[in-house]
Amino acid sequence: MHKRKLTGLLLIVTMVMFCASLKAQKPERIEPPSWWIGFQEPKVQLLVYGKDISTLKPSITYPGVSLERVILVENPNYLFLDLSISPEAKPGKVEIAFKKGTKTISKGSIDLKEREKGSAQREGFNQSDAIYLIMPDRFANAITDNDAVAGMREGLNRQDPYGRHGGDLEGIRQHLDYVQSLGFTSIWLNPVLENDQPESSYHGYAITDFYKVDPRFGRNEDYKKFVDDCRSRGIKVIMDMVFNHCGSMHWWMNDLPEKDWINVFPEYTPSNYRLSTVADPYAAKADIELTTRGWFATAMPDLNLQNELMKNYMIQNSIWWIEYSGLQGIRMDTYPYPDKHGMADWILRLKKEYPDFSVVGETWITQASKLVYWQKDFPNKDGYNSHLEYLMDFPMADALTRAFNEGEGWDTGLQRLYDVLADDHLYRYPLNMVVFAENHDMGRMAHFYGGDLRKMKMAAAFVATVRGIPQWYYGSELLMEGDGAKSHGAIRQDFPGGWPGDQINAFTKEGRTDSQNEMVNYLSALFQYRKASKVLHEGNTLHFVPLNEVYVYFRYLGDEAVMVMMNNNDSHDRMVDMSRFEEILKNYGSGTEVVTGQKYNLDTITVPAKSALIIELHK
Amino acid sequence: MHKRKLTGLLLIVTMVMFCASLKAQKPERIEPPSWWIGFQEPKVQLLVYGKDISTLKPSITYPGVSLERVILVENPNYLFLDLSISPEAKPGKVEIAFKKGTKTISKGSIDLKEREKGSAQREGFNQSDAIYLIMPDRFANAITDNDAVAGMREGLNRQDPYGRHGGDLEGIRQHLDYVQSLGFTSIWLNPVLENDQPESSYHGYAITDFYKVDPRFGRNEDYKKFVDDCRSRGIKVIMDMVFNHCGSMHWWMNDLPEKDWINVFPEYTPSNYRLSTVADPYAAKADIELTTRGWFATAMPDLNLQNELMKNYMIQNSIWWIEYSGLQGIRMDTYPYPDKHGMADWILRLKKEYPDFSVVGETWITQASKLVYWQKDFPNKDGYNSHLEYLMDFPMADALTRAFNEGEGWDTGLQRLYDVLADDHLYRYPLNMVVFAENHDMGRMAHFYGGDLRKMKMAAAFVATVRGIPQWYYGSELLMEGDGAKSHGAIRQDFPGGWPGDQINAFTKEGRTDSQNEMVNYLSALFQYRKASKVLHEGNTLHFVPLNEVYVYFRYLGDEAVMVMMNNNDSHDRMVDMSRFEEILKNYGSGTEVVTGQKYNLDTITVPAKSALIIELHK
Repeated sequence: MHKRKLTGLLLIVTMVMFCASLKAQKPERIEPPSWWIGFQEPKVQLLVYGKDISTLKPSITYPGVSLERVILVENPNYLFLDLSISPEAKPGKVEIAFKKGTKTISKGSIDLKEREKGSAQREGFNQSDAIYLIMPDRFANAITDNDAVAGMREGLNRQDPYGRHGGDLEGIRQHLDYVQSLGFTSIWLNPVLENDQPESSYHGYAITDFYKVDPRFGRNEDYKKFVDDCRSRGIKVIMDMVFNHCGSMHWWMNDLPEKDWINVFPEYTPSNYRLSTVADPYAAKADIELTTRGWFATAMPDLNLQNELMKNYMIQNSIWWIEYSGLQGIRMDTYPYPDKHGMADWILRLKKEYPDFSVVGETWITQASKLVYWQKDFPNKDGYNSHLEYLMDFPMADALTRAFNEGEGWDTGLQRLYDVLADDHLYRYPLNMVVFAENHDMGRMAHFYGGDLRKMKMAAAFVATVRGIPQWYYGSELLMEGDGAKSHGAIRQDFPGGWPGDQINAFTKEGRTDSQNEMVNYLSALFQYRKASKVLHEGNTLHFVPLNEVYVYFRYLGDEAVMVMMNNNDSHDRMVDMSRFEEILKNYGSGTEVVTGQKYNLDTITVPAKSALIIELHK
Repeated sequence: MHKRKLTGLLLIVTMVMFCASLKAQKPERIEPPSWWIGFQEPKVQLLVYGKDISTLKPSITYPGVSLERVILVENPNYLFLDLSISPEAKPGKVEIAFKKGTKTISKGSIDLKEREKGSAQREGFNQSDAIYLIMPDRFANAITDNDAVAGMREGLNRQDPYGRHGGDLEGIRQHLDYVQSLGFTSIWLNPVLENDQPESSYHGYAITDFYKVDPRFGRNEDYKKFVDDCRSRGIKVIMDMVFNHCGSMHWWMNDLPEKDWINVFPEYTPSNYRLSTVADPYAAKADIELTTRGWFATAMPDLNLQNELMKNYMIQNSIWWIEYSGLQGIRMDTYPYPDKHGMADWILRLKKEYPDFSVVGETWITQASKLVYWQKDFPNKDGYNSHLEYLMDFPMADALTRAFNEGEGWDTGLQRLYDVLADDHLYRYPLNMVVFAENHDMGRMAHFYGGDLRKMKMAAAFVATVRGIPQWYYGSELLMEGDGAKSHGAIRQDFPGGWPGDQINAFTKEGRTDSQNEMVNYLSALFQYRKASKVLHEGNTLHFVPLNEVYVYFRYLGDEAVMVMMNNNDSHDRMVDMSRFEEILKNYGSGTEVVTGQKYNLDTITVPAKSALIIELHK
């Protein structure tokens, strides 16, 4: 997420007298609420919360489960219990007795479960995927009963761009056909966990309970059902997680386990958002501290991953959601903001449990020189290895917002795309870049392309064919406009037809304008083609310096090859003499444009003004 | 040099009938003309040129010198002789007899010399130096007799911005006091070797004889005398060399040893100047070929370092000049354009002979992500190691042309300087960057700063105090203006007072305007200070994110520290609360500004609008 996302309310507002409501010496919360048998790491650490719970002595008698360590912290209302779970343990309810002497004062439990078969071997998202990004509050509202939930701080207000509009998981589930018709194979939802904040809670980045889906989106079971349904259709679900901060109304904010559970300053101190400090050999400690410990927004207390208990809490939480719901990927918010060593520990742990699982970091850095620090195995001088495999390709996103709006210069127009790709000599895993023209924090494509359908199609053609994993933001296929710099509400519009009573249903051809259908059809043809194209998933890249406003690149693998030709001139078609590409075209005799089906010989090809041709090559 | 440097004349012009003038079977040229005893590499390869010389059999009888190999090439007018020189050989004239059978038809020789004591151990330029760049034709004309030389293609025309103005080595030598008074410790001259071209020959980058100083600058002996005089004053001389191309009127252009001595295409083919292709894993072969084999300009045939004989010729030539004249450094023109492996071989050879010698490459790449490929030991994915220690810091130069002209934004103003330094996490040797705001190919500082003396001083303060080696272009201390994009002549003006009869003599205080004296005095105070400041040479850097238009950074080493504060606001002084810098200032109690001598306490410091303070810190 980006710093402009939230204007929030002050932490101080949350300082209500809450502790008084706790029942004495009884566990109010035990987290995680369940765990599984058979992880590589047999240990699970339980957070137990209850008034004066630390005055009691926990005890477990369950075959195969041993209580190895009891950790007391500053706050007597917490206990942390290290349990070791034997692979021979059987599923069941693991009771924890809290005793005074030999007398049991209170009890709690967690559910011990069998892992789903093949759970550890699940495949993450990869280059064969194309990701569709949905903001759950704004896509489709199937269940109106949950639009406002009694006892929660914010109700429904569809008129307010920053209010809750009522979209839910079931709404998305009911439109999976639509998503698949566009050719996407993976869905990234903005966070769905509870955000019981008094305002602007719709976006999900101010989590108030890390183990609970926001009831306005559905229950935990509904999320699991959504993931299950997606999986059975061949759609991979990517969960949006946030380790950097929680919501100011998170339950623990009234009664923190330890003072350094979150990062605090004498007064509210925002991050400087200068991510370069983390890698910079000259950065002042004071600046690094601001970057990593300063708050992202007033409503978002900054979690301190340098606290081992906190770090472990978050790591386990991510594993819990993977195992509980059957996820295939995680998109980690504000990746470079938390303690970088904690984040690396997290990735290592995930890869230990799920070797093929995928995590992509939101690494909002538009210079490759600075971004590359964050990808796995980059030989950083300071020895840091993030172990993070997938990066959001912000340098490319930055280039895409400009490339089609500019004339060709030394470093403008299509040359921007070429120049970003040229930096791939740095990345150890350039195929692991997630490529996008926009996301939920940026201006809408149709905004920065001035509603020019031709530019939209060029951008779509590029993200679908360039190396990496394409990502598309819901609604841009409808040419939704919106200036992200002005208002986040404006770029997170409701999908027309997602709400009962919507006058327009853009999920159907009939409900869309001609332009919208043109875009939907183009996108669909593009991504359906990509879905089956191994060469676009895994192929090498060969590109030629843009010339005469035309950029030509190839993806190739074995005998297969796809050629992409983009003409960036606003009004002139360009006839291209293909002899320049002889080093690859010598192997091919003809080609077929993958969207129109038009056949081409490979002597000269005319690329219409402001358009892309995607030509599959034949012998 | 930059691609815009020359509009030249076509190679075809040079195709005059020249061979006819050769005397049959007699060596017209033997190069190198002399060599030395005691190099690590005992082999020297002679190029022998003479009509049908290859029909004769060369023979050497000189104690300690053996002719190990005779190489015949396509052109019968050439012979290449591999000589091995024993460390026991004595100095003298090594005769080479060219025989038919037992009969000596002709003779040639090279001088074998003793190396100067300590030659191999000479110290190159390093961080303790500050470099003053002079264009020899435009600085001072001491000897008017050599302004036009009979038989050479271009005469004197001081009125023509692209003509020869008459400056010479003796002129520079006579003004070494001036250069030293400014505080510089090293001089880089644009190339001084023969450029017998019909036009635009003044700049020196179209070399027509690699073993001869251009007679309009002086003789080889004058160059040696210049270097000797500099050395005895403690000034290091950096020679500007060009391996990428020669002049179209180079003597060998009429009768090349081998067809691939230079890179040729069916018709004149310029470089695409896209240096990224060399590192780009996706670059088309056709584009790399254009980058490295395309010509830099029509008057500059592109030398082919993939030809081993050519490569060796250039390597030996560079060693010859180092040994002959006593150089301490080389600035290599258009570094990434020739074959990169040949260039790496060259550096390795130089370091073998002169372990402490320094080479800086003209690597005109403004993105760190792409520039870093070219510095020694960067862990390039393709395994390439340039072995090149010093780079021209073009990213910083690019930032410096803009930083003081802009308001402070997310990535504008002083933030540009900060952001460039943050990229030092990539470079293995960030102290080896040569830092400059302009050179002979760029617009004059006073041009892009709109003649604002305050900005000039800020730029000077920055290059003098930032990590790396500062470089200053002659005449900018006089606030010379000139738009490099419009005309190279305009940025290579004559230094007033360098010519007999000049109305103004800006080498003297009296000849300068008040503004010019202000700049000269500032620069002089700055670089005299730097000269003695180990902390500015070798110190670590600590910098703080620019805030409120003020950028503060420190150089520190042991107990010593210098603090630089820059206020970029155009009209408002900035009072800075120094508590932000506590992590370093806790060690110091007061400071002295190094130019004004003003004392500061370290509670709050007011930095005047558009200015820099350089404050030496005290306990």
